[in-house]
Amino acid sequence: MNTLGDVGEFGLIRRVTVGREQPPTTLLGPGDDSAIVAAPDGRVVACTDVLVEGVHFRLDWSTPDQVGRKAAAANLADVAAMGAVPTALLVGLACPRDTAVETLEAIASGLWAEAAGAGAGVVGGDVASGPAIVLSVTALGSLEGRDAVTRAGARPGEVVALCGRIGWAAAGLDVLHRGFRSPGAVVNAHRVPEPPYAAGPRAARAGATSMIDVSDGLLADLAHVATASGVTIDVATAALTVPPRLAEVASALGVDPLGWLLTGGEDHALVATFPPGAAPEGWTVIGAVRAPEGEPAVLVDGAPHDGPAGWDHFA
Amino acid sequence: MNTLGDVGEFGLIRRVTVGREQPPTTLLGPGDDSAIVAAPDGRVVACTDVLVEGVHFRLDWSTPDQVGRKAAAANLADVAAMGAVPTALLVGLACPRDTAVETLEAIASGLWAEAAGAGAGVVGGDVASGPAIVLSVTALGSLEGRDAVTRAGARPGEVVALCGRIGWAAAGLDVLHRGFRSPGAVVNAHRVPEPPYAAGPRAARAGATSMIDVSDGLLADLAHVATASGVTIDVATAALTVPPRLAEVASALGVDPLGWLLTGGEDHALVATFPPGAAPEGWTVIGAVRAPEGEPAVLVDGAPHDGPAGWDHFA
Repeated sequence: MNTLGDVGEFGLIRRVTVGREQPPTTLLGPGDDSAIVAAPDGRVVACTDVLVEGVHFRLDWSTPDQVGRKAAAANLADVAAMGAVPTALLVGLACPRDTAVETLEAIASGLWAEAAGAGAGVVGGDVASGPAIVLSVTALGSLEGRDAVTRAGARPGEVVALCGRIGWAAAGLDVLHRGFRSPGAVVNAHRVPEPPYAAGPRAARAGATSMIDVSDGLLADLAHVATASGVTIDVATAALTVPPRLAEVASALGVDPLGWLLTGGEDHALVATFPPGAAPEGWTVIGAVRAPEGEPAVLVDGAPHDGPAGWDHFA
Repeated sequence: MNTLGDVGEFGLIRRVTVGREQPPTTLLGPGDDSAIVAAPDGRVVACTDVLVEGVHFRLDWSTPDQVGRKAAAANLADVAAMGAVPTALLVGLACPRDTAVETLEAIASGLWAEAAGAGAGVVGGDVASGPAIVLSVTALGSLEGRDAVTRAGARPGEVVALCGRIGWAAAGLDVLHRGFRSPGAVVNAHRVPEPPYAAGPRAARAGATSMIDVSDGLLADLAHVATASGVTIDVATAALTVPPRLAEVASALGVDPLGWLLTGGEDHALVATFPPGAAPEGWTVIGAVRAPEGEPAVLVDGAPHDGPAGWDHFA
């Protein structure tokens, strides 16, 4: 088994970049001091997300390929949540010198595959030795001439709509924590999210007034929208269908699946606000935007939610 | 003392972003799913560099502010080395939960200060818990309508020219490794490089045919240019003046200062090739580009260099 220490920084970079196909937006790919990416409308959308071994993933729970996909997905979803189309990823990797090259190649393959699925290339990065695997991914994107859909545009009278899965990754993590490895559908949802990338630009074109991706939990992320927009958001649990698969798993574990839906993060669904009737196909209305009584807030069925709202990394 | 665990992810992000001034290129700063940065000519230059505590810096050798400056500088120099003007940084940070908030605020201040000095803003980032401080910085930049200056454009008959300091950071590191803390000039050169950011775009305007920043060592980085361009580069040591300060330190340590100049990295000087006579003010001609005899190579005074060329992170 070759380790990173055996092949060296440049050896690794060659292995994970040579022969990869780049999308047309990659004007200059890996191998120089910097990459060059097209930004056709004169602006570039950019975001960074960090995943740490033992915190965000475990290599006994996920394959390295899945870790790469997950790291890419978390960032690509942040681009989509602006209403933008992903164009490129850059990857900062720290890992122990004795990490197997095969592990790093598999992480890279996951990153490339997820990026390609969203239309983006992997255009640059860096690798350094460190005490654990830390993956810091930066995603770039294009707004295609549109205004960005920020968190600040929600207005009273609008609807809140959701596109994509929620609760699945949390259910999968719960299953893994209890020592199980199945059912595969929920465990894999924790391993590799499936953000609805194309739904972000589609929502923007349909007139979405605010948007965010559900990374920390539906209520926690809607709280960011409520605060940024100065509104109160009321989620109607009747609109949140518990998929049969999640209901089964919840029943087996003796928990309320609604908790996963309201507070589970990492599925990277998109949640947005629209003028009434404007939510496009594929989006489900799950609540309403109201004028705030006092501070902006997120309510569940008209009342404050009882329990933790979601994931604050250090809280 | 407050730790990251006390204030949480969002508390930290507020502390390090609120009230900061952004340059005009920052169209949307921190606080949403993504930032938006101007890319006026329809392209964005992008690069990522990773710094790890205990590998690239030690907090008993450098202040957190200096660590932030260094992390920013390494990336901003990569943008300048394309002939581009830096516009923005994004920062992925992993660190232990018990890291003092003051330490992280100081790292952030260093990042902001170095970015501002190069004309860029800090537009986004993420923080996660991890076993050591890992800083993954992504820099963006604008080519202002010019062609990028890659590593691949050097042609036989051209000159090799240098702008900025070389050998200083290596001398400083040598001093620190031997247990000394002075002289300050060389130790601080290790702590905070001073890349000549503006010299990158200036070289591009003057017709530089290839360019790289000296991060791994002059010979190692020129080897990247030689390989990418398919040429041989011959460095003339007579043109490499050893500054009196470095000569003194070398004499005190009993080493040859030329080693620092040829193989010391981390000063982030810029080295470029130009048609004869084209190197602008501030650049010193230090060698020549020749047709390769066999494989592309870097020579020192016409002969292969005896000894390690520089820094391969895992070699």
